[in-house]
Amino acid sequence: MTLKVELLAYTPGGEMLSAMAAKLTHSKSSIEELRGGDEKQLGNILRHVIKMGHESVIEHAYFTFAISGVSRALTHQLVRHRIASYSQQSQRYVESEIEYVTPPSIKAAGMEREYIDTMGKLWHIYDEFREKVPVEDARYVLPNAACTKIMVSMNARSLLNFFELRCCLHAQWEIRALAWKMLGLVRKVAPVIFENAGPPCKTKHKCPMNKKDCRWYPMDG
Amino acid sequence: MTLKVELLAYTPGGEMLSAMAAKLTHSKSSIEELRGGDEKQLGNILRHVIKMGHESVIEHAYFTFAISGVSRALTHQLVRHRIASYSQQSQRYVESEIEYVTPPSIKAAGMEREYIDTMGKLWHIYDEFREKVPVEDARYVLPNAACTKIMVSMNARSLLNFFELRCCLHAQWEIRALAWKMLGLVRKVAPVIFENAGPPCKTKHKCPMNKKDCRWYPMDG
Amino acid sequence: MTLKVELLAYTPGGEMLSAMAAKLTHSKSSIEELRGGDEKQLGNILRHVIKMGHESVIEHAYFTFAISGVSRALTHQLVRHRIASYSQQSQRYVESEIEYVTPPSIKAAGMEREYIDTMGKLWHIYDEFREKVPVEDARYVLPNAACTKIMVSMNARSLLNFFELRCCLHAQWEIRALAWKMLGLVRKVAPVIFENAGPPCKTKHKCPMNKKDCRWYPMDG
Amino acid sequence: MTLKVELLAYTPGGEMLSAMAAKLTHSKSSIEELRGGDEKQLGNILRHVIKMGHESVIEHAYFTFAISGVSRALTHQLVRHRIASYSQQSQRYVESEIEYVTPPSIKAAGMEREYIDTMGKLWHIYDEFREKVPVEDARYVLPNAACTKIMVSMNARSLLNFFELRCCLHAQWEIRALAWKMLGLVRKVAPVIFENAGPPCKTKHKCPMNKKDCRWYPMDG
Repeated sequence: MTLKVELLAYTPGGEMLSAMAAKLTHSKSSIEELRGGDEKQLGNILRHVIKMGHESVIEHAYFTFAISGVSRALTHQLVRHRIASYSQQSQRYVESEIEYVTPPSIKAAGMEREYIDTMGKLWHIYDEFREKVPVEDARYVLPNAACTKIMVSMNARSLLNFFELRCCLHAQWEIRALAWKMLGLVRKVAPVIFENAGPPCKTKHKCPMNKKDCRWYPMDG
Repeated sequence: MTLKVELLAYTPGGEMLSAMAAKLTHSKSSIEELRGGDEKQLGNILRHVIKMGHESVIEHAYFTFAISGVSRALTHQLVRHRIASYSQQSQRYVESEIEYVTPPSIKAAGMEREYIDTMGKLWHIYDEFREKVPVEDARYVLPNAACTKIMVSMNARSLLNFFELRCCLHAQWEIRALAWKMLGLVRKVAPVIFENAGPPCKTKHKCPMNKKDCRWYPMDG
Repeated sequence: MTLKVELLAYTPGGEMLSAMAAKLTHSKSSIEELRGGDEKQLGNILRHVIKMGHESVIEHAYFTFAISGVSRALTHQLVRHRIASYSQQSQRYVESEIEYVTPPSIKAAGMEREYIDTMGKLWHIYDEFREKVPVEDARYVLPNAACTKIMVSMNARSLLNFFELRCCLHAQWEIRALAWKMLGLVRKVAPVIFENAGPPCKTKHKCPMNKKDCRWYPMDG
Repeated sequence: MTLKVELLAYTPGGEMLSAMAAKLTHSKSSIEELRGGDEKQLGNILRHVIKMGHESVIEHAYFTFAISGVSRALTHQLVRHRIASYSQQSQRYVESEIEYVTPPSIKAAGMEREYIDTMGKLWHIYDEFREKVPVEDARYVLPNAACTKIMVSMNARSLLNFFELRCCLHAQWEIRALAWKMLGLVRKVAPVIFENAGPPCKTKHKCPMNKKDCRWYPMDG
């Protein structure tokens, strides 16, 4: 299975809303005046407040993704992000097809054949168990690799945090691939908010973990 | 000043998204299949899951309001709702015009004249102080009645909770008026999600506080 | 492996704190006076506000659990509760011993032998992979049944919600067993807060899902 | 009125719990082994993870404060911190005594006399209104300066964020004074967690806002 992520919906004009919110906090302007504001000026305000770390205004911009072709190893990490909303396909109610994620390292190690065999056997046993016990119990034999589908909504501030942590080379490879894909999607519709999104090494030439052995480690901070 | 509330933005197709999310959790369907789903069927699914109390799926629908003509008495209550995002006009940075909310009970008691005088004097003193001390300190004399502007974003689940608490007759009159106006606005764009929104007496013929002396108390539960 | 849960820590005097908080909102009393309050009276206040649904005051009481002998099927559900804090043993960094949870239905169906064999083979393959690929990739073959350890902190309000959902017969059996054990532990140290905790059928003789085919369905509502 | 803040309760052994949580994520140790761990070693682990920015483990340490002698100008800012729990004395139900906060700048400008007079008149009018209208409406004339009491609970991670923002010279003076007092209190009981708490200029020799005109601006970064 291949990772697939789609931006299902997002707040229309979310960047302008965020800029209006920023201006509202420091201005006498009425909502009408804010709304009629100059787009370029609002863009500059938005850029400025994000740079200053005043990220609360971008919480008004909200994004909903559909994700499939990912493992439950990935989603167990994903749902740890608490400022977000999730709807995930249930393994308790939905019978699992034989669909799984294969780590690239396993292919690289020449072990893909064994991996595929293992998966085949596991789903065979799963199907056997399913005839005797509830689906929700049969699934105890299913592997972390098993594919799942999930819908995720996050506001832009929570996304910035997600990208900071999960686009990092230190993040697990599968969720990192997802994070970069999500970043690509939101950059198209909110280019100002996300222009400096990503791991701190790329955006701030800093590494909070000071991981000098990382090949992305900032040399030019 | 008069309460003014506007629905600035909302998730396009938020109800269909929520219904898709509900279906996704219990179905093998792909995202594509879910998206092509029958609208009427999806509406029924949505109605069903809300009735069952499975409200997490409606978190994918997100709403942003601009609110003005409300008192800081109101906003101090409003911002207690934590599953929400706020951007409020600052009294630290923005000089306050003489704009305030007058409680109806004060008019009814024939005390509006005295109220207006008090407000006039307060802003006069505020202006005096402002010449000598920072705006953020001069505002210590400003009343709870002083008007403010605020942008608010909430997802539909958090809104349902907000309407349950704040549309109730037990809620303070000013925030109750706001809540009913907000409910009116979201009902237009998400009629299924909000068709039973409001205080429990109206929606469930029940009163969690069992307030038998309330004129809305359910007689026909 | 057997489910093991321990109450590692909790707010000392959390019930009295919660009752003080309730009284504070409606009283002129100073903190000193509140603290010197009559224990029985405070207990009654606490009982009253919980009954009225004013649960915010019990957020001041906080509980930390250590949980082990549970499957990752369980923790994937557990961490969906967002008003909580989690620290979980990582499968990326820690090599997994052969430890797993066996669903009772599998024993009942006489399939335990096959289950044990499957687990044995899986860990054997896991060990093989581990020699060639990173632990974080080898674990893709590990099953949902694999044991994990996790520390969890929740405030009392979030716990009430957790118990309402997860002590329910509709909840998955493993997390239900955990929920009842946690409830047993907190009842000992906060008997007033948790005296009516649990599924709605037990506490309110109501079923939000109206599951008439459930053997716990309330007959005497 | 004078600001008064008291640490009412906190998680016993919260630092050791946090260190155990940190160790748990990367270790095979059982809970028993973790608990019996060397205190000094656990302290070092805790220091290390905080420095790396892995702050989730300190969410297990929870703190409850009682705050009085503060203005509603302050609490309106305070309750904007959403990862926290609040119980505040209600102006709807509790008649307000004449108690208020006086900004130092007003004393310094020689305007204290006028300020005191204003407050006196305001409460006089408040008392007049109270005879004719509900307390919740009379309070519309009460000033931002009016004193309030509030109980607050936050976990250590949320507190670190609170101290970063509110101990800053850019924060409003009253909430800054509160923040430094709270920091003093928690440092006594959790010295490792809070040893580098405070504004970024003090803790990291950096200013996210790059406020070069600030007298605390870091010269030696």
